[in-house]
Amino acid sequence: MKALVYRGPREVEVTQMPDARIEAPTDVLVRITSTNICGSDLHIYEGRAPMEDGKAIGHENMGEVVEIGDAVVRVKVGDMVSLPFNIACGFCTNCERGLTAFCLTVNPGFAGGAYGYPMMGPYQGGQAEFLRVPFGDVNCLRLPEDAREKEADYAMLADIWPTGWHGTRLAGLRPGENVAIFGSGPVGLMAALSAQVQGAEEVFVVDRHPDRLALAERIGATPIDDTDGPTADQILERTKGEGVARGIEAVGWQAHDPQGHEVPNSTINDLIASVRATGGIGVLGVFVPEDPQSPDEDMKEGRLTIDWGTFFTKGLHLGCGQANVKAYNRELRDLVHAGKAQPGWIVSHHLPLDEAPEAYRHFDARDEGWTKVVLHP
Amino acid sequence: MKALVYRGPREVEVTQMPDARIEAPTDVLVRITSTNICGSDLHIYEGRAPMEDGKAIGHENMGEVVEIGDAVVRVKVGDMVSLPFNIACGFCTNCERGLTAFCLTVNPGFAGGAYGYPMMGPYQGGQAEFLRVPFGDVNCLRLPEDAREKEADYAMLADIWPTGWHGTRLAGLRPGENVAIFGSGPVGLMAALSAQVQGAEEVFVVDRHPDRLALAERIGATPIDDTDGPTADQILERTKGEGVARGIEAVGWQAHDPQGHEVPNSTINDLIASVRATGGIGVLGVFVPEDPQSPDEDMKEGRLTIDWGTFFTKGLHLGCGQANVKAYNRELRDLVHAGKAQPGWIVSHHLPLDEAPEAYRHFDARDEGWTKVVLHP
Amino acid sequence: MKALVYRGPREVEVTQMPDARIEAPTDVLVRITSTNICGSDLHIYEGRAPMEDGKAIGHENMGEVVEIGDAVVRVKVGDMVSLPFNIACGFCTNCERGLTAFCLTVNPGFAGGAYGYPMMGPYQGGQAEFLRVPFGDVNCLRLPEDAREKEADYAMLADIWPTGWHGTRLAGLRPGENVAIFGSGPVGLMAALSAQVQGAEEVFVVDRHPDRLALAERIGATPIDDTDGPTADQILERTKGEGVARGIEAVGWQAHDPQGHEVPNSTINDLIASVRATGGIGVLGVFVPEDPQSPDEDMKEGRLTIDWGTFFTKGLHLGCGQANVKAYNRELRDLVHAGKAQPGWIVSHHLPLDEAPEAYRHFDARDEGWTKVVLHP
Amino acid sequence: MKALVYRGPREVEVTQMPDARIEAPTDVLVRITSTNICGSDLHIYEGRAPMEDGKAIGHENMGEVVEIGDAVVRVKVGDMVSLPFNIACGFCTNCERGLTAFCLTVNPGFAGGAYGYPMMGPYQGGQAEFLRVPFGDVNCLRLPEDAREKEADYAMLADIWPTGWHGTRLAGLRPGENVAIFGSGPVGLMAALSAQVQGAEEVFVVDRHPDRLALAERIGATPIDDTDGPTADQILERTKGEGVARGIEAVGWQAHDPQGHEVPNSTINDLIASVRATGGIGVLGVFVPEDPQSPDEDMKEGRLTIDWGTFFTKGLHLGCGQANVKAYNRELRDLVHAGKAQPGWIVSHHLPLDEAPEAYRHFDARDEGWTKVVLHP
Repeated sequence: MKALVYRGPREVEVTQMPDARIEAPTDVLVRITSTNICGSDLHIYEGRAPMEDGKAIGHENMGEVVEIGDAVVRVKVGDMVSLPFNIACGFCTNCERGLTAFCLTVNPGFAGGAYGYPMMGPYQGGQAEFLRVPFGDVNCLRLPEDAREKEADYAMLADIWPTGWHGTRLAGLRPGENVAIFGSGPVGLMAALSAQVQGAEEVFVVDRHPDRLALAERIGATPIDDTDGPTADQILERTKGEGVARGIEAVGWQAHDPQGHEVPNSTINDLIASVRATGGIGVLGVFVPEDPQSPDEDMKEGRLTIDWGTFFTKGLHLGCGQANVKAYNRELRDLVHAGKAQPGWIVSHHLPLDEAPEAYRHFDARDEGWTKVVLHP
Repeated sequence: MKALVYRGPREVEVTQMPDARIEAPTDVLVRITSTNICGSDLHIYEGRAPMEDGKAIGHENMGEVVEIGDAVVRVKVGDMVSLPFNIACGFCTNCERGLTAFCLTVNPGFAGGAYGYPMMGPYQGGQAEFLRVPFGDVNCLRLPEDAREKEADYAMLADIWPTGWHGTRLAGLRPGENVAIFGSGPVGLMAALSAQVQGAEEVFVVDRHPDRLALAERIGATPIDDTDGPTADQILERTKGEGVARGIEAVGWQAHDPQGHEVPNSTINDLIASVRATGGIGVLGVFVPEDPQSPDEDMKEGRLTIDWGTFFTKGLHLGCGQANVKAYNRELRDLVHAGKAQPGWIVSHHLPLDEAPEAYRHFDARDEGWTKVVLHP
Repeated sequence: MKALVYRGPREVEVTQMPDARIEAPTDVLVRITSTNICGSDLHIYEGRAPMEDGKAIGHENMGEVVEIGDAVVRVKVGDMVSLPFNIACGFCTNCERGLTAFCLTVNPGFAGGAYGYPMMGPYQGGQAEFLRVPFGDVNCLRLPEDAREKEADYAMLADIWPTGWHGTRLAGLRPGENVAIFGSGPVGLMAALSAQVQGAEEVFVVDRHPDRLALAERIGATPIDDTDGPTADQILERTKGEGVARGIEAVGWQAHDPQGHEVPNSTINDLIASVRATGGIGVLGVFVPEDPQSPDEDMKEGRLTIDWGTFFTKGLHLGCGQANVKAYNRELRDLVHAGKAQPGWIVSHHLPLDEAPEAYRHFDARDEGWTKVVLHP
Repeated sequence: MKALVYRGPREVEVTQMPDARIEAPTDVLVRITSTNICGSDLHIYEGRAPMEDGKAIGHENMGEVVEIGDAVVRVKVGDMVSLPFNIACGFCTNCERGLTAFCLTVNPGFAGGAYGYPMMGPYQGGQAEFLRVPFGDVNCLRLPEDAREKEADYAMLADIWPTGWHGTRLAGLRPGENVAIFGSGPVGLMAALSAQVQGAEEVFVVDRHPDRLALAERIGATPIDDTDGPTADQILERTKGEGVARGIEAVGWQAHDPQGHEVPNSTINDLIASVRATGGIGVLGVFVPEDPQSPDEDMKEGRLTIDWGTFFTKGLHLGCGQANVKAYNRELRDLVHAGKAQPGWIVSHHLPLDEAPEAYRHFDARDEGWTKVVLHP
């Protein structure tokens, strides 16, 4: 089958690899119809999250079931399904509590597994014609009859929308509260959509790319351009000095200032300054335990220098980590089906798999208008 | 001052009574600018909730602060304020936990006090020119600079919108879930608005008055006409036999069938039939411990015959009681201010106080178009 | 293999039946070492919960894994395991949220399945030498190395202790609050133990059997003998007229008065009278949708006449239904292992399977000292 | 009246100052019977939390009401009361939600006020004969008839026990889980007691003072001596490599290594290493926004270098800040009254006020056996 594989820093290739196939009785085999390029795929692409040569990338997958293992009882051949990026067993201590992003079974020695990602287990990615889905009854979300008609919306269920939603839950957002989201890449935009769906009072989105800020504005969010001055100051000014009730980090460890220098602790400390006493912060942007290529000395060893005294004095709380997609994807699917949300509004490009390498190039360069790419193998 | 007082069953009168005044150092005196007739005022009007002759009615109040007691530190003369219908001390066991509808201080021997209502303490109602507000710092919600401009919206904060919102909390509604609301009087409509604001998947509203069902439809809810057949059947049919995740009762003990016979247990049992296993029910409609005038033998002594075996088998949960307005009114105010919600859409009539008796007549008769009356003394 | 099967009202028999065996690749086969007689087995025994002739009874099971299906990855042959009474798939809507007592997969057309119980699916009971466990990775809780040494304690994890614990969760008990538990059968006693472990202030246990009340007292609970006068009065008197914060029903639809007459609504209404405004009630005792044999006219059709007006006025909340055992059994296992709780204190008899019929007779008669029987096939 | 006042670094003095008196109609005047020296008083004593010359110290206060203002309605002269260290108005945004440690009224410009502490408002401390209590109905917890008999236990309700309890809530401890507490000073010990009362599986307490570790052991906790090797390693070893579910920081910014060097980020990073993926951390130890006297360059400006990559990868959550005492003190009082907990077990010295200066000296030096001092003016 054809797949998009990693070759080395900034080098990806569409090539032939052995067909994905049923390997265990609980497996399901899916023919991929939509697979998105994720912002975190760029960590692989840039060589900052090192992956082995020849492995297929892709963890935002959706498609049609073409074969099921002997032990699969719920999923049927022909079902259109969305596949949560984190692979879960459904029965370990963490899965039982709904913490499926931290499955203890699928990636022994580590809490969590995923498709096509370094350190997340031996699973191939889905930027390919077919995908093997372990524990298929657990890891397939069945889609309704309008799956093909609203494919751009449903394609957002594998990762990006549940991840944005997770940010609102980590931050503890309640209806009627305001929230500041740092980063208006796909995750930040999805956090903004999630906050709007949940009845937030006002949603601030901080970034500097006009096309992305415009997307935020389209769903009623208030854009904050960080080239206009210190973001915490801007937020305090717009909230009568009170700050926001909740904050969400959607950038990660490669956060950089408007001049392009990486300042990995900038978004967290800006959030601590922007969120009011007793508030909450959700951290979605990835921070890694080490990155020898980071220009920041602390970050080479996974450390950030944090304004901890202010954090404590304000009595804030903070949650972080990958989203437990299965905790949210059913309800989000139902909102799409009922016409209550259109997460596909961020999709800028629908492309065949063969054009994936070029799409990576544009997306990595944050070229204007390349907000979100959906590949159709 | 002028006030609307109760004289006897179906007899109310606008008359002169002694001016409301500061009686304790924590009191605040408010000149009423808007005071709504509530569905529960009809219980008084009909003589089903017996009140003493000459007492002023009215617990949905809003106005301007004209005087404050010596111990008041937050509220200032000139503030526009919304007054939660339940009066709270702010420091008893229940108030401390946010359960301000069950204050143990303001109405000794009973958990809860209110303005102008039988059994809820000695407090005069606000369908009058002035109102004495006990524990003013606790019981005044200050309104922003657009208070007069959006007065019809802010007037809904004293009771009806927080009460509708409370129903969604008692039922445990989560974004992406569906909900059935029995009753599309003002409380039911506000529960529907609340569910929409919170991101419900689909909101069913059950009633039989076309004008009220039309109001539900205007905010995107799905009307269910109970004259079209058994309501639980209709709901099951529209949900592929699954039933709804959540249900809300917004009718109360005088629930009657389409033929006009009171069947007090009908809404609760219909909800038990309509809500799916593991779901939740919130009961907002008032049920009283006794009503000698009820045509139902059980209800005379406050009893209902409930489908308890089904309730247990489904593993449902149910919460009930008056809304803790202060648990919600700040955020709801902020949603109005931010333009995210317009609860005033249900107001059908703005009238001077003098026309209150006629308004009671029409509202009690459920005359078409008389959805919600705001009086302006 | 040998098994205890139902023959007809008050007739059970130990007989030979075909060996339990692996039927699906996710199955696990367990050799039973401990299987308890549950109070709800008496509903079968008395013919009030009609079961088919020849089916094995028994849903409180523990034992050793002797065979596993091809798709089982976590459980190993030789593991000592506790088997939650409710059978769960681990991947349906309800299981995903931890509501494993309402699995939608294992008993099509009904929310929930169990071993050896009418209406709960085709599964044989475990009062037998062997038991087939569906979805073995989901339905086996592995026990630590002291499994045999503390077998009486671990045997309580399949149902009775998690069920008692569930009552405290449904009621919303918080540390430092008091609670009244109606019924000191095994479930009531386990609710009392659960409340003590969680730091309850005072735990009242209502019953009339001196041996059972003595067991409650042994763990520090306060016994209330309902032959000493109306229970709500006794509870109000001991709480300075305030009532208790929380209440738990652990009797069910065959509740009877001290004279032995069935009064199915008595415990619920006593709880409504005993629990203070804003409090919570958890209902563990089984109430069935119909019981033609009930002497109570309402209960024949699954109805109870409830003091609903008082329930509403107090603003109570109430949850009910079978316990989601998997939501609690890990932590409870760990408490046994750490020596923090000894739920086996209620066990009165350890018997071989052959003596099961006699044990049923004594237990059904509430003969003194027959609190809890553990069978060892 | 006599009071213990601050004079300068390591200089406190018992002297005469003007009598505390009623200043506002909501005030209550209390004659102090017990007032504890708190670990955070040592920050003042050492000059690390700079306070003005001549101000009375003391925020852990208990006593008898001797006078009430005109607007006080609940508290009566003669009541024995415990006074939460954080002063709250009861009606601001934060107080309404139970976040009384962050009151917006009592210390304008800052979220939170307290007795006798720098930056926490103009309030005198209670290490004195009398104390003025603002908003008396809100800030007095009335004690039962055994107040004098169990005075050492009730004296712990003003701060130290609710603070320890708060740590378990911030960490999200559930019954049956294990927890590691860094620091076995009074707050750490109270966190350990709280975890035990709530049904923790195992409670690790990390410190190096044998007398304090012995106190932890007396209530069933497992002591970890940090001079025996890296604490995270010790905890991982005792938990089969899994780490603990929850962690609590009870040391603060002056954390130092066994050799006595201040390493302010050591406890937080040790917790990140000790807590397992998906776990929670509660931070009780005080971290200040700046401390020019800190030997650590980052900490001079309130910063800590945190292992953020590991924190994110594990998906931990962390909450911090001063305890909302009123959220817990009622239930904790009831546990003392019911004999379910004896928090006074940590008290090492009962002394008259005159001996306070010497007590400060010993307590600051961590002299063996000086665990907790209660002064009786």
